[in-house]
Amino acid sequence: MDTTLTPDAESGLRDEAKPSRRDYDALPASDPKSPVALFGTDEPLAMDSGLTLAPFQIAYQTAGTLNAERSNAVLICHALTGDQHFAHTHPVTKKPGWWETLVGPGKPIDTDRYFVICSNVIGSCMGSTGPASLDPATGRPYGLGFPLVTIRDMVRAQAMLLDRLGIRDLFLCIGGSMGGMQVLQWASLFPERVFAAMPIATGARHSAQNIAFHEVGRQAIMADPAWADGRYLEEGTRPAKGLGVARMGAHITYLSEPALHRKFGRRLQNRAAPTFSFNADFQIESYLRYQGLSFVERFDANAYLYLTRAMDYFDLAEDHGGVLAEAFRGSKTRFCVISFTSDWLFPTADSRAIVHALNAVAAPVAFVEVESDKGHDAFLLDEPALFSAARGFIDAAARARGL
Amino acid sequence: MDTTLTPDAESGLRDEAKPSRRDYDALPASDPKSPVALFGTDEPLAMDSGLTLAPFQIAYQTAGTLNAERSNAVLICHALTGDQHFAHTHPVTKKPGWWETLVGPGKPIDTDRYFVICSNVIGSCMGSTGPASLDPATGRPYGLGFPLVTIRDMVRAQAMLLDRLGIRDLFLCIGGSMGGMQVLQWASLFPERVFAAMPIATGARHSAQNIAFHEVGRQAIMADPAWADGRYLEEGTRPAKGLGVARMGAHITYLSEPALHRKFGRRLQNRAAPTFSFNADFQIESYLRYQGLSFVERFDANAYLYLTRAMDYFDLAEDHGGVLAEAFRGSKTRFCVISFTSDWLFPTADSRAIVHALNAVAAPVAFVEVESDKGHDAFLLDEPALFSAARGFIDAAARARGL
Repeated sequence: MDTTLTPDAESGLRDEAKPSRRDYDALPASDPKSPVALFGTDEPLAMDSGLTLAPFQIAYQTAGTLNAERSNAVLICHALTGDQHFAHTHPVTKKPGWWETLVGPGKPIDTDRYFVICSNVIGSCMGSTGPASLDPATGRPYGLGFPLVTIRDMVRAQAMLLDRLGIRDLFLCIGGSMGGMQVLQWASLFPERVFAAMPIATGARHSAQNIAFHEVGRQAIMADPAWADGRYLEEGTRPAKGLGVARMGAHITYLSEPALHRKFGRRLQNRAAPTFSFNADFQIESYLRYQGLSFVERFDANAYLYLTRAMDYFDLAEDHGGVLAEAFRGSKTRFCVISFTSDWLFPTADSRAIVHALNAVAAPVAFVEVESDKGHDAFLLDEPALFSAARGFIDAAARARGL
Repeated sequence: MDTTLTPDAESGLRDEAKPSRRDYDALPASDPKSPVALFGTDEPLAMDSGLTLAPFQIAYQTAGTLNAERSNAVLICHALTGDQHFAHTHPVTKKPGWWETLVGPGKPIDTDRYFVICSNVIGSCMGSTGPASLDPATGRPYGLGFPLVTIRDMVRAQAMLLDRLGIRDLFLCIGGSMGGMQVLQWASLFPERVFAAMPIATGARHSAQNIAFHEVGRQAIMADPAWADGRYLEEGTRPAKGLGVARMGAHITYLSEPALHRKFGRRLQNRAAPTFSFNADFQIESYLRYQGLSFVERFDANAYLYLTRAMDYFDLAEDHGGVLAEAFRGSKTRFCVISFTSDWLFPTADSRAIVHALNAVAAPVAFVEVESDKGHDAFLLDEPALFSAARGFIDAAARARGL
């Protein structure tokens, strides 16, 4: 996959740059509780597809204080269905921030010491511009008219946000799963801007099996007549059933067989005997149905299509002549790569491939395989071995940086 | 799960037994190319749900010749979406029989020596009575009015077929996946009728993760408006999209990550570069879409619901006080249990649990874990180690039986 912008496309971008029309005021901010950085038509986002996005906006959250040297910034990159609410109560779900286990005063990512930023990725639906946003050219939601987004596009947008915030260097770039892909892309695209990088439960490319699971989810959404070829917002419908099925299937891949066995086994739901019907007899069925239902309340179906596609397209080696090590050649970033033994979505072999590539270019890298039966989602859960590895790596990096 | 028929239900069955009304002539035979055994209202099928099925029919195929002693009969039990066309061209798909690799003249299951039978399971859609059949009480297709089917119900129906064919004992009962569940159920329910048993790529119970995958598939079907609460045959619609999505998701679980990587990797479909769209850019996407499309041409959506449910309900230990060994106590059957290293749907641990249970009751058992990267579907594919294990076991059993 060659997703490098051609010189023509780049110069095309520059030709199109016009003074901001401030029409981005019309874009929806689905999360009014987050600060939003607005980028006008004079600051377009150049995308791997060769298209540009302008105007656009990035919703983000911060915690802690930027020091005078501006040297203590941490960028957290969220996963597929994550968002910027990493360390405070979510405004929609009212649940705790998704990484409060790792981030906060005295935590491994210590908000008493670091200035922590997390922005909603481009293409998502939590306040940053995505397919549910209004297309200023038509006055209607983009839908499938939104340009395809890549992991690199997400990272470029984040870099523009950091520029806006006056942050040149990141002390640390960290994230799990799709967030980990962004971390790898950051370290490869802007090595001089990343002091330390911590990709967790991720891979330098999406495997055939992972693409396959994503494709099933997309087909489930597109099979829902309420999806209406992506124009459901205009039609006033919602592909809730299709999106729910997609989420149910994906959710299985985030867990592990041992965890499912421990948590649910073959236990029946509120019943002493099976009903000999298609009711949710088993607890696992009831749990999955709930996961599907609660997801559709908080996520946009088209955004799900776009973000799964971004992960599928990710192949850092392909962008460097098929040699992953080349993605990191000359890097001075220090890495800590983390995997979990029961993660079958991004198995340890994927992390080892990253480590081997870093070794090949003599980049400083630590690797920790955390023993856990919680599957891929372990990076979001209470995993003391993850916390201690993160604390050790981050504290050492802080000392090296004089923080 | 207690699925034992209560005495009341059993006597109720007997009360309901009436002379055959021959109204089964009205039932559809979706496969007119197979012989069909008809069972009238005087021969009802007693089901685990407590309900009875009458009249009903079983479509089957045979190969080879029954010897004078009637001692050389082999019953092949097919998998979830399999059928009775095990060793001859399929009348619908025109593909070779699904087990021609293993069955035929000179093959491990040698049709020059054995009389081989394979019947379409009750609840399926290839000629045996299932939810797509006409309910004689209403004159309309059963749909969800068809009683829930269990693995034990399938085996009971097969036993009635063997009775009809004048076959008391099976020399061998063999099958993979759901077919392996039937083999285990045969050996447990009718131990005196099974001389040798070969359960392949299966388990004595369906795991939480497997139930979860099945539930996603069912929800995909039920989410399709064309499913029409199961009445699509009456409505003249077909839930092709929902069934296609279900099949796509299930198909992933039949393969393995290494096999998908070897077969497809991240190769693009007929294109030099990604299209930056939701087209099937990757070969794996195109392959999966084809799997979904071709499946809906040959399979009934409600039958898929019923058969997945039958697998979910299967838990042989639960039927014996939670102790799997009790399912086989006193058995004189000789077993050969086969698993495949890359099968993550029914991993080797599931087969080991069967072997341990058989060991606990001192049943003769051989166990072979076949090294293969082909995943669950390996039992259907060209696996020389499977063939040699099967040949060795079957030849030895034949000698022991004096065949």
